[in-house]
Parts: sequence; C-alpha cells; structure tokens
Amino acid sequence: MSDKLFIFDTTLRDGEQVPGCQLNTVEKIQVARALEALGVDVIEAGFPISSPGDFNSVVEISKAVTWPTICALTRGVQKDIDVAAEALQYAKHKRIHTGIGTSDYHIKHKFNSTREEIIERAVAAVKHAKKYVEDVEFYAEDAGRTDNEYLARVVEAVIKAGATVVNIPDTTGYCLPHEFGAKIKYLMENVKGVHNAIISTHCHNDLGMATANTIEGVIAGARQVETTINGIGERAGNTAMEEIAMILHSHKELNITTNINTKKITETSRLVSSLMNMPVQPNKSIVGRNAFAHSSGIHQDGVLKNRESYEIIDPKDVGIDENSIVLTARSGRAALKHRLSVLGVEIDQERLDKVYEDFLKLADRKKDINDDDVLMLVGEDRAAKQRIKLEHLQVVSGIGVQSVASVTLNIAGEKFEASASGNGPVDASIKAVKKIIDRRMTLKEFLIQAINKGSDDVGKVHMQVEYDGNTYFGFGANTDIVAASVEAYIDAINKFVK
Amino acid sequence: MSDKLFIFDTTLRDGEQVPGCQLNTVEKIQVARALEALGVDVIEAGFPISSPGDFNSVVEISKAVTWPTICALTRGVQKDIDVAAEALQYAKHKRIHTGIGTSDYHIKHKFNSTREEIIERAVAAVKHAKKYVEDVEFYAEDAGRTDNEYLARVVEAVIKAGATVVNIPDTTGYCLPHEFGAKIKYLMENVKGVHNAIISTHCHNDLGMATANTIEGVIAGARQVETTINGIGERAGNTAMEEIAMILHSHKELNITTNINTKKITETSRLVSSLMNMPVQPNKSIVGRNAFAHSSGIHQDGVLKNRESYEIIDPKDVGIDENSIVLTARSGRAALKHRLSVLGVEIDQERLDKVYEDFLKLADRKKDINDDDVLMLVGEDRAAKQRIKLEHLQVVSGIGVQSVASVTLNIAGEKFEASASGNGPVDASIKAVKKIIDRRMTLKEFLIQAINKGSDDVGKVHMQVEYDGNTYFGFGANTDIVAASVEAYIDAINKFVK
Repeated sequence: MSDKLFIFDTTLRDGEQVPGCQLNTVEKIQVARALEALGVDVIEAGFPISSPGDFNSVVEISKAVTWPTICALTRGVQKDIDVAAEALQYAKHKRIHTGIGTSDYHIKHKFNSTREEIIERAVAAVKHAKKYVEDVEFYAEDAGRTDNEYLARVVEAVIKAGATVVNIPDTTGYCLPHEFGAKIKYLMENVKGVHNAIISTHCHNDLGMATANTIEGVIAGARQVETTINGIGERAGNTAMEEIAMILHSHKELNITTNINTKKITETSRLVSSLMNMPVQPNKSIVGRNAFAHSSGIHQDGVLKNRESYEIIDPKDVGIDENSIVLTARSGRAALKHRLSVLGVEIDQERLDKVYEDFLKLADRKKDINDDDVLMLVGEDRAAKQRIKLEHLQVVSGIGVQSVASVTLNIAGEKFEASASGNGPVDASIKAVKKIIDRRMTLKEFLIQAINKGSDDVGKVHMQVEYDGNTYFGFGANTDIVAASVEAYIDAINKFVK
Repeated sequence: MSDKLFIFDTTLRDGEQVPGCQLNTVEKIQVARALEALGVDVIEAGFPISSPGDFNSVVEISKAVTWPTICALTRGVQKDIDVAAEALQYAKHKRIHTGIGTSDYHIKHKFNSTREEIIERAVAAVKHAKKYVEDVEFYAEDAGRTDNEYLARVVEAVIKAGATVVNIPDTTGYCLPHEFGAKIKYLMENVKGVHNAIISTHCHNDLGMATANTIEGVIAGARQVETTINGIGERAGNTAMEEIAMILHSHKELNITTNINTKKITETSRLVSSLMNMPVQPNKSIVGRNAFAHSSGIHQDGVLKNRESYEIIDPKDVGIDENSIVLTARSGRAALKHRLSVLGVEIDQERLDKVYEDFLKLADRKKDINDDDVLMLVGEDRAAKQRIKLEHLQVVSGIGVQSVASVTLNIAGEKFEASASGNGPVDASIKAVKKIIDRRMTLKEFLIQAINKGSDDVGKVHMQVEYDGNTYFGFGANTDIVAASVEAYIDAINKFVK
C-alpha cells in the first residue's frame, strides 16, 4: 500500500504576503474553492492577528469550503492564538499553526532569549492552542539552521504537549538537499513519540532548491509538505505544489500518493497567476508556457519518433490538450513535415528538401516561425483565408482624455465600422470590435509581454477568449501594443467564426 | 585548498534554442562578451551544422572573446564534427562537444541500434574529433535514464579514446537529487581512468530539480557544470548559473570555488532576459525582482534587527545596491518606521502607533503601499514635491495611422507642451517628453507586465533610464498601458531632475 502525503497549501498566506499579490476576500474565496477542487488537504487561509482584512478572509474562507482543513497562522503568543481561534469559528475542520524561531540567530537576535526558555514558550503556545482546537501544528522557524539535536528536543516537547503536526521550515532557503533529508531522517530516528505526529516540510527557494529539499524530506519520512501554486511567496518563493505533485506522479517507485487531481494543475496555476498578477516565466517547470514545447532538431526527431524519448510527463496529465512543437532554426526536417501535416499540407521528400532549405534561411532571420510563415513557404497564405481581417484602427487615449477607438473590419470581403469609448485604449478598441461581432464571447486572459530595449520595440500579446464553452487562443505582435492587443483578439475570434 | 569547478555556459546553444529566444550574431557576441566578463570557463557557442547562422555565430564568437574556451556542439557523426572544427578555426581555446544517446529509449527508438554498437560509434566520434582538437567533450545523451553499469562502460571507453570531459546529462529532467548524486559517485568509483577526464553535469528542470541535481553531482565529484543564465532552455530550461554560483558562495564548507564574479550576476541576467525577450518571474531565485524583497511583519522585524536572520545572501554580492523592504498589510511597525526614516521622516512611538493603524486600513484596501502612500499617511505629499508632473497626455494611434502624441508637463509650476510622432503610441509619447526635457537620457529597459482578467484591468510598467552614467528606475500603473508607460518614464526622470 502506498503512503499518503498531505498537501498543505499556503498560497493564501505565505504566497499572498508577496508585494503586489494581495487579494481581496472575494478573490481569496475564488482561490480557496479552486484549491478544494484541486484536492489539497489543508488551506492556510491567513494570519488573523496581522490585519482586519486577514481576519475576515479566514472567516469567509472557513464558510466557503467544505473538505480541506482550514489553518490560521499565529506567532507563539496567547493573543495571536485567541484571535486565530475566533477567526476559525466557522471552519468544518480547523487547525491552528503556531510556533517560534529555534535557530541561534533567532533565539539571540530576535527573542534575546535562551534555548530552554524557547522550549517553554513553544510548549505553552501549543497547550494554549489545544484549548481551542484538537489539530495544532507547530513550526520551528529557521529549523534549517537549527542544530539537529536541539531541534529534536523542541519537536519532542511540542508533540508531548499535543502538537498533531510539526513543521520543519527551511526559512532562509539555505539547506542543501542531502542536508535537509538528513535533518528529517534525524528527527524520525531520534524524537520519542515522533509517530504520534506528522512531520511537515516548508522550504524556501532562495538558492533554487525548495522542491528538491521537500522531496528529500518526504523520502526521509515527512508526510506533509507546505507548498504554493506556482511556487509564489516572499523573496524567491516557496516550494511549487505542481512540481511535488508531478514528481510523485512520475516517480511511482517512491510509492507515495497525494490527493491532487493533476488534471486541474494548469487551470489552477493560471487562476493564481492572473488574480495575483504574478507572471509565470515561460521556462517554469510544469506550468510555464514552454514546459511542453520542443524546438531543437535533435530533440524533435526524438519526440516525433517516441514521446517517451524526451517527455517524462504527458501534458494531458496536467490538463494541457497537446504538446506543441515550435519551429526555430534548430528544427529538423521531420518537425517541419509534421507541422505542415498538422496544417493539412502533405509534401513529398524532394519538395521537403527544397522547402526545408528556404525554411532555414527564414529561421536565421526571424525568431519565431509561425504557422503563417510555414504555409507561406509552401505557397499557402493563411491570412488570406482568415474570415475576419483588421483593416483599420484608430485610437485616441491619454490622461485627462476619454479613450475612444474606431475599428474597420473586413469580414468575408465586406467592410464594417464601429466606434466605442472605454477604460483605456485596449478596452475601447475591444468594445468597438464587439459592436461589429455581436457574439457572447468573454476575454478570459490578457497577457502582454514586452521586455524592450527601447520604446519602439515589438510587444507581444496573448489572449484567451471563451465562446460557446470553448477557449480560443489569439496572438498579436506589433510595435504598437494597443494594435498588438486588437490583433490578438481578432486572431482568437477567427478561430471560431467560420 | 579548495577545488575549482568549471562553469560551462550553454546560454547561446541550449538556451538559444528556445522558441522566440533566437539572437542574431551581433547580439550573440554581446552575450559572449558579457559571459567572458562574468568569468565563465567555457562558452558553448552553437551547433554549427544545424544552420548557416549558427555556423557563422560560432566563427564570430570565436573571434570576439579571448579567455573562455569556445565549444561547438555536434551529433556523433563525422560530417557534424568536420563542420564544427571549421567553425572553431579562429578560437583561441577550442573544444568539440560530441556524443550520442545511451539510454535504452534512445538506443532502441532513436538509433534502432545495440549497446555495443553505440559504444563503437561513441569511440569513433571522439577519435574523429581528436584529429582536429585536443579538448574533446563527450555527452552521453539521456544519461539520467541510462543504467549506471552500462554508462560506466561508455564513459570508460570514451576517456580511453581521448575525451577530456565527459558530460552526464539528465536530458529529460527526471532524476531525483540523491539518485543523480549516486550516479556521479558510481562513475567516480567504477570508471577506470576517470581522473584523466573531468566529469560534467547537464541537468534539465522539468521537475524543478536541475539545480539540486547539479549540486549533488558536484558534491559527488563532478567538476564541470553546464548551465545557462536565468536557467533558460528548452521546455522548463537548464540549471541556472546564478543559483550554482551563489550556492557555492554561501556554502563555503563545500570548499569548491568558481571563477564567477558574482557582482556581475544581476547585470548579466538582465542583459540575457532583455536580448532574448524572456521575462524572469519576480520570484525567481537570485535574479527575480522579489528575490531580495521582504514584506511580512514577522520577517521584517527580523531583517531590521539582524540581516542574517532572514537573508543568506548579501544583495551586494550579486550586484544589487540595497535590499528593499516592501510594505504590505503584513508589515510590522518596525518596517513602517524604517521606511519613513529612509524617506527622511522621523516619528515618535506614540505617533507611530496612530500612523500604523491608518497604514493597516490602507493596506487592506490597496495591494501596493508605495512611498507616496507612506508619506501621505504622515501628512507629506511627495507627488506635490515632484518637480515634473504629467498634466495632460493625448495619443492617437492605430493600424494605418501614424502614431502621434501631445504631452503637457508641469515643471516647477510652469507648463510646457510638445507633440511628436513615433513608432507606436509609447514611442511617440516618449519622444514628446524628450522634446521638453532636453537631456541625454537613454531608455535602457522597458518592461510591461499585465496579466489581466479583462481589457480594462491595470497594467504595470517598469522602466530604467540611464542619465549621466547612473541608472534610474521608474514605475507606472494605469488601466491605460500607454499612460502607465509615460508615468513610469516621468517617475524615473524625477529622480535625477532636481
């Protein structure tokens, strides 16, 4: 029988404390419901004493979700614990998470205290929390830099005092994987009564090793991991939930399972990124836009011959429909042929050689080879086939100016014009387009990416438009970011307006 | 004496094969020179047979840099090696990097071959490369999934054939840290003549463990690591150079040093991100915008009392001037007092309590508490103090329309107007501002970040403006991304126009 690993999600507490990521209560409830659907076991909903908004969020999240345990953070002081207990009153399953710093840095510089006194305070905090709830988690802050022998004494004392879970955080993200694994192993072997509680990891990513430290901790015996969606969190962030879930999913020999429905990973990642306004870099593991895109010639031949040669995760398992092979100067003949075939063009070997030569020349000049370019190489012109074309766009905007846009679309040869005002130039333009194309479509995601060397470089816009229950993607690139946005919108619409 | 670890940078080869990241030769030379200044030992400059542009880049990079070894990639076939040798003709120190897949997946599905035949082909490739250069590196593709015993036979054979470096790639990013460390250890202990060559790691980040696998490989005896700046690369990318450099920098007990000048890390990271158009997520280790920003109340008190409590890396060591504490609803009194003091406002405890209460209310409503907000809380108004204010902005842009902008600035009470046309609405606006403020300033970085739920949400713009040898940062946020861009530009200018 496989062991169950509990997933403790702290996106709404440790993740939400990132500058610029704060959510209002309604948004927090939306995330909490998504986490429940994803299958997390525990939701850390906030730090109630820290602000009235946080208190209220814990109350409202407690009311909104059913299955996961709701957890509230406190410092190891009575007042914090009293307030947390009050905030948790409506939770169906409730946990108080209290603790104190145990490293010498913390004991000396933060608390001006002694090792013995810290143990007393830890025990007192756990006992106080136990008056309110059965399920009490204790954190030994900066456990990563706490010596193992003293840490074992702290852990033993709080378990004896009633802690049901003991959290071993690598607060500064300093530990190396074998070190962190050895720390958990030491506790599993040296703490009396360790099996009366669950040992938990809480790793930070300052040196890029949060995920590895967490996994080595799990292999050594930890059975709860504290993670966030997309690895968000202070500084370099926390352990990414999606990485842990997919490591266990692809390393079946570890014989450890979670309750996560991996097919919901991509959707949850996008929700959190969008609500928290925290972009996920394209090369982020599992949830980055490129995570399943292949481009090199050597690799592409391999992928086409046998998916397992290069891909250890099936994109479907994380809720992505199909992996995309992107063409660049590194792409081989097989990749070009495959792409043409996907686009409905079959060519023989002789013609392929000729087209491939043209392709390489183009790829040396142009960073992205898109489907239009590929079709152009074989003499097809997709733009000419698109039903809706953006013929003219004029936008007036500014500060102290109402934004207004005028749009001319060519739909199957006929011209249509419309104007609209809006909240900014993009909003005005999209409203004008909607006046012409009168369908119930919703702009679900709107991502502008521009890292430019000057003000006249190209901006790229990705959009997701929902229509009739399906999601359609659009892309635009233009030195004018407003024009690029409208192009992306029209591109998406062309995919469902036949 | 400490051991030297060689840094093999593959930003220009494995990194550059990412869709959308392709650089032209001039840009590649710029990156290569930055890598030389950073102190990397080996620059993998390209895969010469893959395209004429790649061949030419290897030639030009060979001419442009002096100290690092220039390396060219090949498949394990004669023609590739011949072309690579030709491309390397001008390199002062040259290396050919050849190899073949060694896992059963590759042997069966890609090569339709046998284990014995693969060893023969590997040896033949190394011997052929040796005809051209002394320094030959061999890669055992998919070594991560190759069984250790067979892998040891391959490594032994290629070292005997003359390989000076043997690269053990975890091509699919599948290995767990202890497994990868054990693999390297097995080779160090079982390959005859292993000390006649350097063992190298080349890890991918599909499961988020590239850095950890690399470090465990180094601890087990590898003395070269193959990395990219910002961890860019296909799919989820490669091991991030900056993470390896800073792990070794902060874990002195490992007694392993590199030639990297860590103070140049941030600058190199930004150059690569900007040229390759690959955003770095805010929570990226070491080089993310938030990597050294602290916001939670508990942590902030700790940071202010003693930097070492929470920070394991001094931001100065990676070339950042000062770590920034960002204020949010989680910030404590000490953090607020510190920020006020940085802004030149000293207040007593009683007044602090009152201001802190107002601060918490504001923080519950507003995601980012900026310096203006803080000053407003104590009755100061920085906006009123800013010398240059953007009073009016009107922009006309579109498709089939020349972009034109009209700007009114209020400078120390006096109004100035100017208009300009440009390549897109932002370019036109900035040119208009420059007509009024006639200084030699250069826009060095222009980053728009917007992940929005609709077309009317707030876009955020960061800018870096260089003036008189110094760099000034500006920020703007507005539902109109063009207006936000102009606000960011004016914000930066206000920092040097006194």
